[in-house]
Amino acid sequence: MLYPPERLAGAQHAIAAAGLDALLITPGSDLRYLTGYDAHVLERLTCLVVPASGQSTLIVPRLERPAAETSPARGTGVQIVDHVDGSDPYPLVVKALSGRGSGAGNKSGPVGAVGLSDRMWAMHALALRDALPGARQRLAGEVLAPLRMRKTPAEVAALREAGAAIDAVHERMGEWLRPGRTEAQVGADIAGAIRDAGHATVDFVIVASGPNGASPHHGTSDRVIAVGDPVVVDIGGTMPSGYCSDSTRTYAVGAPPPDFVAYYEVLYAAQRAAVAAVRPGVTAGAVDAAARSLIDDAGYGEAFLHRTGHGIGLDGHEEPYIVAGDERVLEPGMAFSVEPGIYLAGRHGARIEDIVVCTEAGVDRLNTLPTELVAL
Amino acid sequence: MLYPPERLAGAQHAIAAAGLDALLITPGSDLRYLTGYDAHVLERLTCLVVPASGQSTLIVPRLERPAAETSPARGTGVQIVDHVDGSDPYPLVVKALSGRGSGAGNKSGPVGAVGLSDRMWAMHALALRDALPGARQRLAGEVLAPLRMRKTPAEVAALREAGAAIDAVHERMGEWLRPGRTEAQVGADIAGAIRDAGHATVDFVIVASGPNGASPHHGTSDRVIAVGDPVVVDIGGTMPSGYCSDSTRTYAVGAPPPDFVAYYEVLYAAQRAAVAAVRPGVTAGAVDAAARSLIDDAGYGEAFLHRTGHGIGLDGHEEPYIVAGDERVLEPGMAFSVEPGIYLAGRHGARIEDIVVCTEAGVDRLNTLPTELVAL
Repeated sequence: MLYPPERLAGAQHAIAAAGLDALLITPGSDLRYLTGYDAHVLERLTCLVVPASGQSTLIVPRLERPAAETSPARGTGVQIVDHVDGSDPYPLVVKALSGRGSGAGNKSGPVGAVGLSDRMWAMHALALRDALPGARQRLAGEVLAPLRMRKTPAEVAALREAGAAIDAVHERMGEWLRPGRTEAQVGADIAGAIRDAGHATVDFVIVASGPNGASPHHGTSDRVIAVGDPVVVDIGGTMPSGYCSDSTRTYAVGAPPPDFVAYYEVLYAAQRAAVAAVRPGVTAGAVDAAARSLIDDAGYGEAFLHRTGHGIGLDGHEEPYIVAGDERVLEPGMAFSVEPGIYLAGRHGARIEDIVVCTEAGVDRLNTLPTELVAL
Repeated sequence: MLYPPERLAGAQHAIAAAGLDALLITPGSDLRYLTGYDAHVLERLTCLVVPASGQSTLIVPRLERPAAETSPARGTGVQIVDHVDGSDPYPLVVKALSGRGSGAGNKSGPVGAVGLSDRMWAMHALALRDALPGARQRLAGEVLAPLRMRKTPAEVAALREAGAAIDAVHERMGEWLRPGRTEAQVGADIAGAIRDAGHATVDFVIVASGPNGASPHHGTSDRVIAVGDPVVVDIGGTMPSGYCSDSTRTYAVGAPPPDFVAYYEVLYAAQRAAVAAVRPGVTAGAVDAAARSLIDDAGYGEAFLHRTGHGIGLDGHEEPYIVAGDERVLEPGMAFSVEPGIYLAGRHGARIEDIVVCTEAGVDRLNTLPTELVAL
């Protein structure tokens, strides 16, 4: 993945258009998006100061300077300054803003409004509030989410690579998911396989068997998987490119209960309908409705207790969110999950999740395995 | 690890004493400390509202409700309320605060000041600012750091278990760290071993060989390890208890350069001196000085470019920080790293790190391996 200086320039146009003086970006996906620098998220301040025009400054702890200097950030033309442990780093942000837009675009003077990265820690946000008492704090996401949401072909390729990697893990599930093993044992095997498939980090492993399947965000437990259990397996990681994978399949270990089979068919149809609804010009809410209406009609509406999907890219969850009633209009390049679920408390649950990308022609699935119930 | 309701009660006393109306705690170590609930860090709002007196409320997304209900949080007496995707959850915080302190301790009325968890995302902090426009935002760490910093015997036992787990990984280093392998290959083996040793997550793996050793926060790279390389290996993870491990040893693959051997001896003495300096009544700055003065005297002062250590517990980095000049007085139960380093740009580097706990009698090392240079 290349991080062209044009990304920083594009952000600066958007900063000015949004009426912000600057973005203040701490480590995380926004920093990686703008500069390619995959920095540690720490109590020590690392902060990219991006003014609406002029020179951007990357403030780093001195011990991180070698890493910053060798990161792709250097190629984007940012100036790197450092601070030592025990010194107050926040005045460096004020200083970086004081010379902003020198030359033709000179905008020096009081800072009116800054955009903080959406996931900046409160400890940094409040210190920056105190260092810049006159500046209104807004979210950098106002400016960056619209840019990040529209994936370039290179970004779609990175998501496709991530999708293939997590699909390769699902394809091996029969090696691990067997009666008599605990969810935690299966989960440990899956975690190893996620790394083996090329991910840099394992971000989450859900192995939700039997009644645990009714908890959408169950992790793993010491529950022993039994014959007849439906098992929801929702897994994902981050590739060396920085782009994330996320896919769910539901497995049946032996013959599942008849009531489960009945609603799995409903879910299968709903997930397919939602994927098929994706195309430019359609709203996020319409995609949600395509799944939800089928589940509602079959009488399981109350059991589908979350939104249909979330965007994905350098973060595992990002915009656009696929939520009931949401009027955001889909555009080519938007990538997100389509993952309806049905959850019956005390009994079992099911979810099917693919990452898709909206294309000029309609939709492209980045997870390519079948979505039928997988019998093991 | 037990999460007694007394922790919440203790926090409420401290909230009142600090002149705060309430703490607003999103997922992370503060939430786990107060309730035992290891919640997902997400864009969806999960927030524990802890008023200075009266009933605490845990606000969760509906799909997280089953996980919250089965977590230890239920045993702490908090009230659980939920919200559905697409609804605005922040008014639930306002509502939870409106009835605060009913009865004898009634303090209803405008909210004057709230403490946000130090690592709360800005997206939540700014939404809470707008939902509670009259409330001054401060950091929950003002109240919680002094409590969390003084570990109970059960917490020290959990840190000791974590220390033994990461020591077991260092003991196996000879299996993986060999000439001809890349840092990344070695790092992948280490990551697997961190899990195998009982950690729930792998938090970081630094394998910094040769000149990469001069970058304190190097991760891994495709550099091939050569005979004669010094290699800094700094690794850590989080145990199922939630408590973290973190230990660094420096290895020599074959005979290291003489200049390296010379300063390793200095570093070895400095790290031992800093550990030996730990006892109740000593300042954090004095512990830093015990290491730094020896390194300074040997002429490597500029090459020791970070603080001597950081606290550790439910976070990998937390208070107390062991920084030059810091006047915090150490007390029994405080646990932190002692990790001086010497870094020579373009050549190599070394670091030695143990976690220690301050005891009534002085100091207890929670990493128990020797600190001499390890020849492989």
